[in-house]
Amino acid sequence: MSTFGSHFRVTTYGESHCRSVGCIIDGCPPGMLLTEADIQPQMTRRRPGQSAITTPRNEADLVEIQSGTEFGITLGTPIGLRVLNKDQRPKDYGNKTMDLYPRPSHADFTYLEKYGVKASSGGGRSSARETIGRVAAGAIAEKYLRTAYNIEIVAFTSSIGSISLFPPSTTPSTNPAFLNLLDTISREAVDSFVPVRCPDHSINDAMEKLVGEYRDRDDSIGGTVTCVIRNVPTGLGEPCFDKLEAKLAHAMLSIPATKAFEIGSGFEGCKMPGSVHNDPFTAAEAVSTVGTDGQQEAAPNPFAPKKPRLVTKTNNSGGVQGGISNGAHIYFTVGFKPPATIGQAQATADYDAMDGILEAKGRHDPCVVPRAIPIVEAMASLVIMDAVCAQRGREAMRALLPNLVKDGEQLTR
Amino acid sequence: MSTFGSHFRVTTYGESHCRSVGCIIDGCPPGMLLTEADIQPQMTRRRPGQSAITTPRNEADLVEIQSGTEFGITLGTPIGLRVLNKDQRPKDYGNKTMDLYPRPSHADFTYLEKYGVKASSGGGRSSARETIGRVAAGAIAEKYLRTAYNIEIVAFTSSIGSISLFPPSTTPSTNPAFLNLLDTISREAVDSFVPVRCPDHSINDAMEKLVGEYRDRDDSIGGTVTCVIRNVPTGLGEPCFDKLEAKLAHAMLSIPATKAFEIGSGFEGCKMPGSVHNDPFTAAEAVSTVGTDGQQEAAPNPFAPKKPRLVTKTNNSGGVQGGISNGAHIYFTVGFKPPATIGQAQATADYDAMDGILEAKGRHDPCVVPRAIPIVEAMASLVIMDAVCAQRGREAMRALLPNLVKDGEQLTR
Amino acid sequence: MSTFGSHFRVTTYGESHCRSVGCIIDGCPPGMLLTEADIQPQMTRRRPGQSAITTPRNEADLVEIQSGTEFGITLGTPIGLRVLNKDQRPKDYGNKTMDLYPRPSHADFTYLEKYGVKASSGGGRSSARETIGRVAAGAIAEKYLRTAYNIEIVAFTSSIGSISLFPPSTTPSTNPAFLNLLDTISREAVDSFVPVRCPDHSINDAMEKLVGEYRDRDDSIGGTVTCVIRNVPTGLGEPCFDKLEAKLAHAMLSIPATKAFEIGSGFEGCKMPGSVHNDPFTAAEAVSTVGTDGQQEAAPNPFAPKKPRLVTKTNNSGGVQGGISNGAHIYFTVGFKPPATIGQAQATADYDAMDGILEAKGRHDPCVVPRAIPIVEAMASLVIMDAVCAQRGREAMRALLPNLVKDGEQLTR
Amino acid sequence: MSTFGSHFRVTTYGESHCRSVGCIIDGCPPGMLLTEADIQPQMTRRRPGQSAITTPRNEADLVEIQSGTEFGITLGTPIGLRVLNKDQRPKDYGNKTMDLYPRPSHADFTYLEKYGVKASSGGGRSSARETIGRVAAGAIAEKYLRTAYNIEIVAFTSSIGSISLFPPSTTPSTNPAFLNLLDTISREAVDSFVPVRCPDHSINDAMEKLVGEYRDRDDSIGGTVTCVIRNVPTGLGEPCFDKLEAKLAHAMLSIPATKAFEIGSGFEGCKMPGSVHNDPFTAAEAVSTVGTDGQQEAAPNPFAPKKPRLVTKTNNSGGVQGGISNGAHIYFTVGFKPPATIGQAQATADYDAMDGILEAKGRHDPCVVPRAIPIVEAMASLVIMDAVCAQRGREAMRALLPNLVKDGEQLTR
Repeated sequence: MSTFGSHFRVTTYGESHCRSVGCIIDGCPPGMLLTEADIQPQMTRRRPGQSAITTPRNEADLVEIQSGTEFGITLGTPIGLRVLNKDQRPKDYGNKTMDLYPRPSHADFTYLEKYGVKASSGGGRSSARETIGRVAAGAIAEKYLRTAYNIEIVAFTSSIGSISLFPPSTTPSTNPAFLNLLDTISREAVDSFVPVRCPDHSINDAMEKLVGEYRDRDDSIGGTVTCVIRNVPTGLGEPCFDKLEAKLAHAMLSIPATKAFEIGSGFEGCKMPGSVHNDPFTAAEAVSTVGTDGQQEAAPNPFAPKKPRLVTKTNNSGGVQGGISNGAHIYFTVGFKPPATIGQAQATADYDAMDGILEAKGRHDPCVVPRAIPIVEAMASLVIMDAVCAQRGREAMRALLPNLVKDGEQLTR
Repeated sequence: MSTFGSHFRVTTYGESHCRSVGCIIDGCPPGMLLTEADIQPQMTRRRPGQSAITTPRNEADLVEIQSGTEFGITLGTPIGLRVLNKDQRPKDYGNKTMDLYPRPSHADFTYLEKYGVKASSGGGRSSARETIGRVAAGAIAEKYLRTAYNIEIVAFTSSIGSISLFPPSTTPSTNPAFLNLLDTISREAVDSFVPVRCPDHSINDAMEKLVGEYRDRDDSIGGTVTCVIRNVPTGLGEPCFDKLEAKLAHAMLSIPATKAFEIGSGFEGCKMPGSVHNDPFTAAEAVSTVGTDGQQEAAPNPFAPKKPRLVTKTNNSGGVQGGISNGAHIYFTVGFKPPATIGQAQATADYDAMDGILEAKGRHDPCVVPRAIPIVEAMASLVIMDAVCAQRGREAMRALLPNLVKDGEQLTR
Repeated sequence: MSTFGSHFRVTTYGESHCRSVGCIIDGCPPGMLLTEADIQPQMTRRRPGQSAITTPRNEADLVEIQSGTEFGITLGTPIGLRVLNKDQRPKDYGNKTMDLYPRPSHADFTYLEKYGVKASSGGGRSSARETIGRVAAGAIAEKYLRTAYNIEIVAFTSSIGSISLFPPSTTPSTNPAFLNLLDTISREAVDSFVPVRCPDHSINDAMEKLVGEYRDRDDSIGGTVTCVIRNVPTGLGEPCFDKLEAKLAHAMLSIPATKAFEIGSGFEGCKMPGSVHNDPFTAAEAVSTVGTDGQQEAAPNPFAPKKPRLVTKTNNSGGVQGGISNGAHIYFTVGFKPPATIGQAQATADYDAMDGILEAKGRHDPCVVPRAIPIVEAMASLVIMDAVCAQRGREAMRALLPNLVKDGEQLTR
Repeated sequence: MSTFGSHFRVTTYGESHCRSVGCIIDGCPPGMLLTEADIQPQMTRRRPGQSAITTPRNEADLVEIQSGTEFGITLGTPIGLRVLNKDQRPKDYGNKTMDLYPRPSHADFTYLEKYGVKASSGGGRSSARETIGRVAAGAIAEKYLRTAYNIEIVAFTSSIGSISLFPPSTTPSTNPAFLNLLDTISREAVDSFVPVRCPDHSINDAMEKLVGEYRDRDDSIGGTVTCVIRNVPTGLGEPCFDKLEAKLAHAMLSIPATKAFEIGSGFEGCKMPGSVHNDPFTAAEAVSTVGTDGQQEAAPNPFAPKKPRLVTKTNNSGGVQGGISNGAHIYFTVGFKPPATIGQAQATADYDAMDGILEAKGRHDPCVVPRAIPIVEAMASLVIMDAVCAQRGREAMRALLPNLVKDGEQLTR
């Protein structure tokens, strides 16, 4: 399906060479300030052509709001978004060789098997352009989350090939440097580490050099993106199938080229004893859950969950316990494979099952990780926004029922 | 939500101490032989109390079909399934200490934050008993997949703590021993490796010893489960948000105690160059996609997808490209954290935010990995079954349209 | 599908001759007092065998809660409900004739066409027993609506055959006697009009006599049920496809044997000029939207919509304008056809397309209208409950955003 | 929600005064010939300004396909459709009076109650322009249904005010003239009855005169539309909540200004005895279920249901029994109220609850019935298409299972 979310529902359309790409967002709260200027920055952050190591196509990707707002205020009705495709007809893809061969590890073959129609762009919806609608919708979700809860979502490059921001032998969830980064990292900071967006100057430079080497060899390389979500209210995530980590994993593995997901302590945590892995509780300090976006000051918040009295001393859980947010930072890492389209000659078979050599023409991205960052943030926004809608609805229904008390004990609260 | 799947829809109910647990399956194909005997084996495989290293509660977990079949044949109507709870009232959980403290890294705190009701079983739906409905439904899905496609789904323990079936320094997707295991492993073989279900005698024994040590220390330990799905038809998985790996990740991360998921080459693959990681194509040998379950011989299959003419020489993709199955084995690994409930004293805070010491009474599972195996298989079945329904529906609609030909070239097939 | 609702989701299972019938309710608010005693009364009201003119089978239909409550309080988790089938094997249906013939206007033929499996109960899920799950779920929805909003839902028989409660030549929406009935009718009053549940003694008696005549001729007769929903908050109903009247129509036409639905002025209103049909506004009197069910006093209601300042002087709209509730009584009428199963001989064809005579054995309901009343109420409850969930969620999200003011004018409120 | 359908999913966006209106269609079968020329005719049929009795605004309503096709063939991916709004800013609606008053029986008041935002177009999504997306999507569904099954969907005006095509005292389902019309009426014929689209010259003329009288009085009038669907395969409709008539009722009551729905014998049938109302079976004549649209010849159809051996002698059921299509014509009637926006002065209250007089400026449609015809057809197409997808999927899954035989009797077929 091309729809994501149950309450804040995003439906996307479009492939590489059609008239436009875009989406419809159904379920956006009414009464929120919203113009294209709220959406464009993330569109621009995902745009190719930003450095020597990303695809040098120049795509402007200007988003147009079609509906759902008036005088810059959301109406609560569906918001249509559209971005024109500049290259509405194939160019580089037109060469004879690429028409004859399904690209290895690309979606050309599986799309043909699935749909029975050979499209000029190969695996049409597996294209990076499909992610434009996600990023645009994510920017709207994020604006709400920031305004209402001061939620902050920041992703950064945590590894390229074998170069890691933190030594892989350490368990991130018990590494103070990693935990400090989660507390403090901002998008502005991430973007200052051009071009790889890895928040350490020397590692960022080493990564740039590594990607350049793969580019020069007409090869490609993968890596990982880590994302933190701060100021999440407690109670998000729907048992039992829609646990918050399950929805995050779903969202992340729906991004093109992803292969892996881990939350909190992740695979490393599976090697730890429970006595060390468990996150014990302690009393919470007072914090505000009310946000602002600079334009629109948050309302006094009758619906805000009461601040939990408990927080955890450690955060191996990654902010989620039993599939439900506990108020701590949510953080997770997503693995991206090396891009399948490479310039090197590949010994493979053509559509007629004859062995041959495919040499892909055109300029290809040697590494998707830096550009994937706003996409990871967008998908995280959509998951959190949908979970907030579900839980706010529950709380609002619950609030119409009295608290029950029996023998002096409060049974419901 | 407690519903999984769009076409083969499973809705579960029940927690630890209510009258029963169970589910409704809506969308099961009519005309399939089905009795409790098809479901019970997987129920029994997930049952606790099977060895010294799992919870010694003796729960029979007998499943009863309520509806949807007549004379042992599915009607196509909803199938109700029910398993009685033997312990319909709390026992070990009744002690005063556990009432006062939310267990660290358990769901007690987050459930209270979410629902505002303190249940005697703590995080009710995060209980292992909730998985009974999944396993029962999975057994039905699996019967269909086996009958119609000869699909085989086998999971096994691939690590406990730091003990791995294959050295972690090797990349599984390029390890011949691992790939051979994927080709050949059966459930019978897995179950012969008592009690850990790791298919290597010496490693299995070392794992048993390790788990026993954690049990003796009132501690717990995590591990990983690897699962392979064989004989998958091409074309499964729905762009763009419901890519097959996205649904698998969603399904797996919805299992209690999971923290991580990787498909195919996984995180290791993110370190590989594209020139090595890509899976080139070659001509396929003839294989049958028609199955049998021994009872019911498969029909001549007018709907079976034409056998693809291409297969991949390697399988770093894990059987999925562009979110769509390519006919190769699908394989993935799921990480399980150490169980949160441990007998050791834990310095934590009670519900009133006062520091104190929690000592959990009762007998607890020191490692969930061996018992998780049929749950992983069940969730994999549900994902594949739902994807098969979607794609068979598409093919059936497509088949009513003529193939289009232009200038001698076949445009659709 | 066997699921109704997006937020308060009811999934039912079961046919006439299986082990049990029942449902799972997912999305019930936590913290509500709930026991079987809240559900049983409506179960009993729909039970057959209550008078000489309904099916004389004696079915106890005792409902058992399986899950989702503890100590009589809802947990917010799925509520499983089950009612045993007493007749788990066909009896009257066993005769040879009925096995050979699809009953005219019954679902025997269409179920066989749809599923390809011949069930002993013919159109299994078209059975009246399928409605048990709906009525049980509706009773839970209704308890919430009554507690939180004092919403009252009352249905009654408005016609049997050609005998109408109000002369058909009058337009009900402009008939003061009809409008007064909508204001005042209660379930207790309806049930006092035994056995037809038409709230006028002489008409009720005439209807009883008419149904008896059809019964004595082994024939059957149809009729209509009118339903009113009082104290509905404004703002319910989701544009554009899930308008409140669209969901009500969907719900009502999903009840077995229904053929027609009209809301407000209905078909008669289509003959009226707009100048007469329009419902002009006037200032509202103060009314409370906070309810009670006698057990549980409603909480002070921070989420309650501000009482609308406007009400309509007339109510041709039936409480819905633009698909959204306006606070006036919602009322609608549902048409039920004469039951298809009759004792008279019918000239028809058997499954092999051979002409012949079908004589149905057994005792059959000559008119479903009186028993349909609690089913109509249940489905109305489910529609309103789901709409309340959607709108409360929207309001709760909206409430986190500040009211916007420009040039002294309040743009959002 | 702004999404309709589970398999062929249509999501619409847009209101009167935004940049564009449109929709995304997800789930269209791949490999179908499709260009704007397939969609435009129905767009043009719903366009206002076609005669003296409809709104004289001149809106071109040219549809543009954004995605999902290549070289005029559907790819199976989402189809984006867009129609520009010519009047992107309010004009007639700008007068001071209309800003102050919620129009009686219009959606101005309820939209404000629901969303808390006062939009310049009043009830934005209740606008007739919202139906553009439905009509465009319906044209695509219809093309598939015509190509694959030769399904024909034709709606016509059956009454305006008190003028009926057939005398209201007759029961249509037993009126030979009515039944003959259902067999034979075509869209071309309907459109030849300008301007009211009632297929009887003298009645059409009388209706035109009547509408003109209401127009001249600045008043409005309602009426009914009857629709027939021919060549429907058996087995469509999903028990128990998504019976085919339930989905049709839902679809029709989601069209602006509708108040009532009846299928087959409808309300009149509720007065008939079962012995007369029942539709007995007889052997079927051979008919082809394979269609063509003139461009694309239908494929030999391995998925087509075997032609049923039984048909009904009468059709009081309206083609649906037990919620499932039986192969007979489906026909139903929809009631449209008089348009709420009238030029006459109305005594009502303003938003501040002060009594006053509203005089609406601008030119308004005195009767929506003639223009509603393509909208009714479109919604019928969407319902049937979605039901076809569900049932073809079931059949395709079922076909992979063998037919079961016991003691020589075929248990499944």
